[in-house]
Amino acid sequence: MGSEIGVGLIGTGFMGKCHALAYGSVKAVFGSVPTPRRLKLCDADADLARQRAEEYGFAEAVTDWRTIIADPAIQLVSITTPNALHREMAEAALAAGKHVWCEKPMGLTLADAESMAAAGRSAGVRTQLGYNYLRNPLIAEAKRLIESGEIGRITHFRGVVDEDYMADAEIPWSWRCQLAEAGLGALGDIMVHLVSLAHTLAGRVEKLTAQIETIHKTRPLPDRPGETGRVENEDAAQALVRFASGASGLLTCSRAAWGRKNRLAFEIHGTRGTLIFDQERMNELQLFTASGDPATRGFRTILTAPAHPPYGLFCPAPGHGLGFNDLKVIELAALLRAIDGTPDPLAVDFTAGLAIERVIHAMVMSAQSKAWVAV
Amino acid sequence: MGSEIGVGLIGTGFMGKCHALAYGSVKAVFGSVPTPRRLKLCDADADLARQRAEEYGFAEAVTDWRTIIADPAIQLVSITTPNALHREMAEAALAAGKHVWCEKPMGLTLADAESMAAAGRSAGVRTQLGYNYLRNPLIAEAKRLIESGEIGRITHFRGVVDEDYMADAEIPWSWRCQLAEAGLGALGDIMVHLVSLAHTLAGRVEKLTAQIETIHKTRPLPDRPGETGRVENEDAAQALVRFASGASGLLTCSRAAWGRKNRLAFEIHGTRGTLIFDQERMNELQLFTASGDPATRGFRTILTAPAHPPYGLFCPAPGHGLGFNDLKVIELAALLRAIDGTPDPLAVDFTAGLAIERVIHAMVMSAQSKAWVAV
Amino acid sequence: MGSEIGVGLIGTGFMGKCHALAYGSVKAVFGSVPTPRRLKLCDADADLARQRAEEYGFAEAVTDWRTIIADPAIQLVSITTPNALHREMAEAALAAGKHVWCEKPMGLTLADAESMAAAGRSAGVRTQLGYNYLRNPLIAEAKRLIESGEIGRITHFRGVVDEDYMADAEIPWSWRCQLAEAGLGALGDIMVHLVSLAHTLAGRVEKLTAQIETIHKTRPLPDRPGETGRVENEDAAQALVRFASGASGLLTCSRAAWGRKNRLAFEIHGTRGTLIFDQERMNELQLFTASGDPATRGFRTILTAPAHPPYGLFCPAPGHGLGFNDLKVIELAALLRAIDGTPDPLAVDFTAGLAIERVIHAMVMSAQSKAWVAV
Amino acid sequence: MGSEIGVGLIGTGFMGKCHALAYGSVKAVFGSVPTPRRLKLCDADADLARQRAEEYGFAEAVTDWRTIIADPAIQLVSITTPNALHREMAEAALAAGKHVWCEKPMGLTLADAESMAAAGRSAGVRTQLGYNYLRNPLIAEAKRLIESGEIGRITHFRGVVDEDYMADAEIPWSWRCQLAEAGLGALGDIMVHLVSLAHTLAGRVEKLTAQIETIHKTRPLPDRPGETGRVENEDAAQALVRFASGASGLLTCSRAAWGRKNRLAFEIHGTRGTLIFDQERMNELQLFTASGDPATRGFRTILTAPAHPPYGLFCPAPGHGLGFNDLKVIELAALLRAIDGTPDPLAVDFTAGLAIERVIHAMVMSAQSKAWVAV
Repeated sequence: MGSEIGVGLIGTGFMGKCHALAYGSVKAVFGSVPTPRRLKLCDADADLARQRAEEYGFAEAVTDWRTIIADPAIQLVSITTPNALHREMAEAALAAGKHVWCEKPMGLTLADAESMAAAGRSAGVRTQLGYNYLRNPLIAEAKRLIESGEIGRITHFRGVVDEDYMADAEIPWSWRCQLAEAGLGALGDIMVHLVSLAHTLAGRVEKLTAQIETIHKTRPLPDRPGETGRVENEDAAQALVRFASGASGLLTCSRAAWGRKNRLAFEIHGTRGTLIFDQERMNELQLFTASGDPATRGFRTILTAPAHPPYGLFCPAPGHGLGFNDLKVIELAALLRAIDGTPDPLAVDFTAGLAIERVIHAMVMSAQSKAWVAV
Repeated sequence: MGSEIGVGLIGTGFMGKCHALAYGSVKAVFGSVPTPRRLKLCDADADLARQRAEEYGFAEAVTDWRTIIADPAIQLVSITTPNALHREMAEAALAAGKHVWCEKPMGLTLADAESMAAAGRSAGVRTQLGYNYLRNPLIAEAKRLIESGEIGRITHFRGVVDEDYMADAEIPWSWRCQLAEAGLGALGDIMVHLVSLAHTLAGRVEKLTAQIETIHKTRPLPDRPGETGRVENEDAAQALVRFASGASGLLTCSRAAWGRKNRLAFEIHGTRGTLIFDQERMNELQLFTASGDPATRGFRTILTAPAHPPYGLFCPAPGHGLGFNDLKVIELAALLRAIDGTPDPLAVDFTAGLAIERVIHAMVMSAQSKAWVAV
Repeated sequence: MGSEIGVGLIGTGFMGKCHALAYGSVKAVFGSVPTPRRLKLCDADADLARQRAEEYGFAEAVTDWRTIIADPAIQLVSITTPNALHREMAEAALAAGKHVWCEKPMGLTLADAESMAAAGRSAGVRTQLGYNYLRNPLIAEAKRLIESGEIGRITHFRGVVDEDYMADAEIPWSWRCQLAEAGLGALGDIMVHLVSLAHTLAGRVEKLTAQIETIHKTRPLPDRPGETGRVENEDAAQALVRFASGASGLLTCSRAAWGRKNRLAFEIHGTRGTLIFDQERMNELQLFTASGDPATRGFRTILTAPAHPPYGLFCPAPGHGLGFNDLKVIELAALLRAIDGTPDPLAVDFTAGLAIERVIHAMVMSAQSKAWVAV
Repeated sequence: MGSEIGVGLIGTGFMGKCHALAYGSVKAVFGSVPTPRRLKLCDADADLARQRAEEYGFAEAVTDWRTIIADPAIQLVSITTPNALHREMAEAALAAGKHVWCEKPMGLTLADAESMAAAGRSAGVRTQLGYNYLRNPLIAEAKRLIESGEIGRITHFRGVVDEDYMADAEIPWSWRCQLAEAGLGALGDIMVHLVSLAHTLAGRVEKLTAQIETIHKTRPLPDRPGETGRVENEDAAQALVRFASGASGLLTCSRAAWGRKNRLAFEIHGTRGTLIFDQERMNELQLFTASGDPATRGFRTILTAPAHPPYGLFCPAPGHGLGFNDLKVIELAALLRAIDGTPDPLAVDFTAGLAIERVIHAMVMSAQSKAWVAV
């Protein structure tokens, strides 16, 4: 009755739960995918690991992630731990011949990403990074519209990703503020998502010039009243870019934009039309085309529908709405099928992920050199 | 390790899949709920039943729903079959001492609903109807705002539910168009959702006057080219209502409103403010309060966030978006907890469901008598 | 050099200023209209009259409105006084052979409106009521789209007009609250605008059933602390209607809808599409048509543009925005041209105005009789 | 009865009409301003000049603009001719001791602007440039909110100005495409408006790096079928900027953005909140403040109202909407009052205008040098 694949999950936080939910739903939603068998879940805290294993439907709880790597029944490993741990875990899993599904960004440094990409290329298995926003059926629709020439040749890509999780100056200093623990700030957390959309829809970024800044330069130390710690990574960044296609672009991000919760938004200008998207209204895509009666032209708001696969597998009725977690289910289905041999046109493997991270590191270099840099 | 509850699912269509997804996710999302054990799934088609059982994670596939009723290990039965079958199945399940989770509307006629409500009251188990839109965390927030007096006393409730699944005159005639097979049309399909919101947020509807109509009075017969069949149930309805509280209201629905996909929307006027919601943008709630500097008053768009439980159990980051299927998970969690003894303030059991259906049947009566009728 | 027409203005309040602005701009905007010569302006307060005459560019200030009626050089009289004065002034002007441009509603009672309509029909001059929202170029566009069959046959007209000028319970009692001084409340102030749109776009209302209410039944008396006065007219009303065409409709209004400032909005359902408009975003019209690729259907937002005459006379660039006062200029241009012999397809003369007022008075009757009434 | 000021108008195109409308309305709207006496209007075409003089209410039509400069009764000269003529006319008017109200941009080159600014500084009269979007009452409100600390310290200003008047590749080549005739393209036409908003709300731009491009590099020659002419100026530009305050910024413009008609929009991030504005919805301002119950925070949509002076002079009722031409009336009132001695906090005189133009010329320089440049 269909193939199976043994899976292990390392990390049980925000994205760990998201992976777990995807493992629990993907077969029911998609039907024709290998069935994931949830074998082992790892959390350093033994009690928590046991509790989560029960809740998430994993057969066994472990506290040493190497147990998962060592298990021959596990073919696919999810890595949802803090960024600083990704590289070691991913490379160990690859070395053991496991497929790897790892959250973004790849690591703390560009060297991490390069090493992981190299490991991925030589491993002979699938690697996949957690660029879930790409999996929105409306992004696939946007891609289809672009490829079919509906908006003509792309001339400009303007993207923004704003949140406000670090907007409040009173949020205390933490490991998040340290380069050695967290790596980059808003660039690694959120700009990478925007770059993934730009790469998918407008092609590769070739060069750029950027400015970067830390808006709240110090934050209160949690345990020492009246004292503050220095924030080492950036709250916001902006870049002018040039795509390989010749199109111009603008990419901006902030983790200190009050009122924005997940405004991952873009606007694509073409010679015959325009596309607009905003993740905060993730079930809507705006399209303008220079066609038809001028008196009735306008941006049209397209609601997600069965006409935008695989929406219909979640709900046969249009406009009923997907949610954030549904995107992860789509991402997982694509990975399972890729493992099974079906190509995934939206895949972001470690090589494609490295290309994304080169862009954010180029932004850092440009901000330092105050010059255009090639990616 | 937490309690367990054996479940059976009858019906594997649109809502059957939705129930199945909820069973597969609820423990991972909520943690502290009884764990559903997916024991038996029923579909009249044996092959389909087997396939769905595998996909949905049910241990066994059956083709006779009475097998589920007869299974002593099953304590909770999901009924997601066509409306005409609800009553018999629900009453049999209740008679067997099962908790029942049944999709709306209850049956084809008011008599069906009355019978089911009576059966539910005497059964000593939980009954729950699928009013999933009530489970949006923003509806709970709206209720909280109303109860805390944030918008003052409610003076007016204006609601609409529009879709376009029967807007096209060329959609062929089917069982959907027959009273004996489908029961009411837009009133039973969608108006009941609006009434459920009105009852939850503005209290009971006491009397009303309505008009009802079939916009496309005949439809092409699928197998007989050039011939048409008569549509026996309504495409659209509108009603003026009076709530028990004294507030006025307006309820309108259409299944022939081109461009609307799930516009289940309301606007609540109070003596100190206004609340607005639209299911097509289900992650947003609009609030206006008559407070603060007049120069900066305005409707504010509230994005779903962890401040609106149980959103945070799906995603710890605000504004990332829930989807249609997530609401069913919330509904199921509330039912599981209610079975476990925790009261569910938003529950729509068969008695509350009957109250909703009395409203739509009063609309039919008023449209015939062209007079105000008491509900 | 083009023809001229002598004009007199009675009343210098809200709408008096609006008329004055229109007189000052219409020739510059439209070019090919008779030039209005601002001869006499009347205000009962002599100082104010003098000041306003200077500001508004009128040659002479008078305090007795009959002076305007008596002036043979004046051919067109603007009446912008309180409603209770409209009838006497309008009938006197008509008797003197003047064209009359009068603000709505026509008077306090249906008898007033009937008398004025009769006087208008026998006078051999032009009468025009101030239904300025009809003059939005996007309303003309909506009419064009309907007439060209773009949305098919109209099946439903749903309209709302909400403001909050009486939402605050602390607004003191005034003449506005008295039937003998103000006539109807929200019905006369704002519902008439909605009916004018319904009549223009969906045709005549044939019958209706309504409910009406006074939300704040008493208000503080301004000069007597602690005492209250009774509010005699309605804050809100709702009606189910049936148009002569057979289409159904829903009309609702409130002057106590917190946060709404000029939400004069409608949604028109047709067998092939839908039109949506909201005066608070008066430069946008929403159109959905059931045509083209289902994957890219959606409501499109049309911005006012030169493609929607006479927008281009105000601004040659699209989407730059008209304002409330511009609509009055368009209304005046149509009147001046009608006086000059060019038919005005959107004209609301006293006869058409009476038809509008019959609808609101039918709402009052229906609310009393609790039955459907013919208009 | 109040002072008077003699005015002359040079140019009768798009902005000439806009000035004319402002002269015709300003006294009626504002009351307490000097009354403009429309003395002479100039157009090179004698017939057109006569026709426009009649329509616009000017006493006399002339074909030589020097006649206006030479008229001692004229104290204020409006210059609305093509950009290439601004400098000569403005400097002649200043030399003759006239106040000058000139459309933007100041001239074709930075040298033009510098010369005009120098002339303005030494002339002892008022100069004013047509930055009408600044005059929106909601921009004044935004400024008030910023100055009162409502959004804290500004950390980021993100602005866009997009139109589509050159989006179609088939629009023929014209003088507009030539540096010697039109000067800059989108930078001079529209980016200057965005810079004026940035300067007003976020302070002076200190340095920037930019990229500029011509999207349609050639256009069809109107008279020579099959041949094309080279477009010499830019269709689009983007810049990263740094304000003198230390805040970062992003400014982008396009005249080839399909579907955008007047999207002059900004988003201002502060340490306590965010402000958002879009000229296409010019009667709305969005405000988010980090205050109050987290469960009900959100962007609020503020509709223009009498609480935002001078809106109430146009209309005493909130939310009824101003239009594009109304902004010019406000601009003129401020100029007339400034001439009369009342300081105008939003004034853009030739010196302030030069500062704006330095920014766009710095963008050109940066795009050439591919480096950050100081303004």
